Amino acid sequence: MRRSAGRSGATPKVVALGGGHGLSASLSALRRITQELTAVVTVADDGGSSGRLREEMGVLPPGDLRQALAALCGDDEWGRTWARVIQHRFASGGDLHGHAVGNLLIVALWEQLGDPVAALEWVGRLLGAHGRVLPMSAVPLELTASVRGHDPAAPDEITTVRGQATVALTPGEVQEVQLVPSDPPAVPEAVQAVLDADWVVLGPGSWFSSVMPHLLVPDLVCALMETRARKVLTLNLAPQPGETDGFSPQRHLEVLARHAPKLTIDVVLADEAAVPDRESLAEAAERLSGTVELARVAAPDGPRHDPEQLAAAYDRIFRMHGRIGPWR
Amino acid sequence: MRRSAGRSGATPKVVALGGGHGLSASLSALRRITQELTAVVTVADDGGSSGRLREEMGVLPPGDLRQALAALCGDDEWGRTWARVIQHRFASGGDLHGHAVGNLLIVALWEQLGDPVAALEWVGRLLGAHGRVLPMSAVPLELTASVRGHDPAAPDEITTVRGQATVALTPGEVQEVQLVPSDPPAVPEAVQAVLDADWVVLGPGSWFSSVMPHLLVPDLVCALMETRARKVLTLNLAPQPGETDGFSPQRHLEVLARHAPKLTIDVVLADEAAVPDRESLAEAAERLSGTVELARVAAPDGPRHDPEQLAAAYDRIFRMHGRIGPWR
Repeated sequence: MRRSAGRSGATPKVVALGGGHGLSASLSALRRITQELTAVVTVADDGGSSGRLREEMGVLPPGDLRQALAALCGDDEWGRTWARVIQHRFASGGDLHGHAVGNLLIVALWEQLGDPVAALEWVGRLLGAHGRVLPMSAVPLELTASVRGHDPAAPDEITTVRGQATVALTPGEVQEVQLVPSDPPAVPEAVQAVLDADWVVLGPGSWFSSVMPHLLVPDLVCALMETRARKVLTLNLAPQPGETDGFSPQRHLEVLARHAPKLTIDVVLADEAAVPDRESLAEAAERLSGTVELARVAAPDGPRHDPEQLAAAYDRIFRMHGRIGPWR
Repeated sequence: MRRSAGRSGATPKVVALGGGHGLSASLSALRRITQELTAVVTVADDGGSSGRLREEMGVLPPGDLRQALAALCGDDEWGRTWARVIQHRFASGGDLHGHAVGNLLIVALWEQLGDPVAALEWVGRLLGAHGRVLPMSAVPLELTASVRGHDPAAPDEITTVRGQATVALTPGEVQEVQLVPSDPPAVPEAVQAVLDADWVVLGPGSWFSSVMPHLLVPDLVCALMETRARKVLTLNLAPQPGETDGFSPQRHLEVLARHAPKLTIDVVLADEAAVPDRESLAEAAERLSGTVELARVAAPDGPRHDPEQLAAAYDRIFRMHGRIGPWR
């Protein structure tokens, strides 16, 4: 299925912000309805293969970038084979154990070409990728979090927890995240993509570690406020143990408002089965100047988005809520 | 420069046997004069990145295969960039230190596709390679050597030294090498390539660790004796410290005869400045049923073959010594 939303022959320019599995889900959907897709990916991961690589080589964590590239791979044998290869993880019990091959390839290209954006373009060309993948910053970032009850012995105390991998596992309740350094430079190509977009998609994904970080990069949040693009915020299908245990859909919006107080959202997309209190969600969306769109977007086999259904929902939203006229 | 030897539009089928830098030299030359080039590569290396990978992952040593692929890379920006990437070596001081990226990529493809030959074809397609690269065997091999004076305290004693990396560094004099297992199966595609060839090129290269091993694979040596292809043996420009210290050119031929007593060679190619005693070399070549061709094939800047000059020498040999008529 390859369709363009809008007039025949035109295609909306879409930028998806995120990281991890959530971003893969939105890219797997969006690639079906636009030819002009850019992913802007968080670079604060410090766990697993990515964490070891940034520690050993002093590079950006490549894992979320690799996943986004794999989600955009060409849908022929060539693209699918190279996507399998970059997603391949060594399981040796030795030095290479757990490393994803694409992470090593991306790091090698960074070292060879000296330019993180150009290197990712080369991997994109290898995969015949349907879109561009950009890091949100060219500087490796650390995520810290203000957590209530990180120490179960002191359930009301708020402490600062350092590192995305640690934040993701806290038994406490995350209040807010910060980046170190606190004002990282955005990648200029990412800023420009947001400014040039027709639609910007935030979420789904790990709310504090994949969706909020973009809102803490000053140039990026400025671009999100300046751009003429409409913004859709896609909610998760279920709260995420650790990060958003017990959070209602509307609380996800409050978290966003806390991290980017002036940011408006045009459309909040949620699965109709994941919203127990529609009125409260509508009120929360209104406080962001947006409206709620409910749709069936969950796959039948578990809490993950179905790419076809998510694509259909985005397509409908882009048509119903888009600016009048042909896509710029 | 891209020329075909033989009639206009025809191209000789050439198989180059070897490993390491020597094979890269012959491939860099041969790619200039044929469109039908196959490299058959030794798989007995146990040092460096390759040695660590076969130890950790139980795979064929990929390093010589990677080098051969890089030597065949497409001569556009795409091919050259991916060749640089696969040749890139991590220098981190950590777990990845010293690994060549192409080695990791080849191992990942082996694990993903489960077929060593198909995996190398994928890397060849990635590079836009001008030719095929095959392992001589699908089984990782160990090289052992009978060495006189491996222990400097017992200069006349002959001992068995195990492992290519150790053999390459022995202070003693290598008499003969063996493979473990002693009758490894050849890769069928390699046997077929030798049978279908117009020309087979052996050497240059580390005589005991890159040139002799092929002659110890029974299927391969049978194919070398059965094939209608003519065989050219290219000598090194200088004796190699460790492996062939103090060996004369003719002694290299005697070593070959000791490892493959029934094998004939049609042409022995040597650099004219590297043959102090032309008569002795001619006599040694005659014992292999061959003749000697002398040419200037050394680069001006050190003991390495100049690809253009080596190509010109092969082209002349293929024309002068080739069978009459169009290439099959």
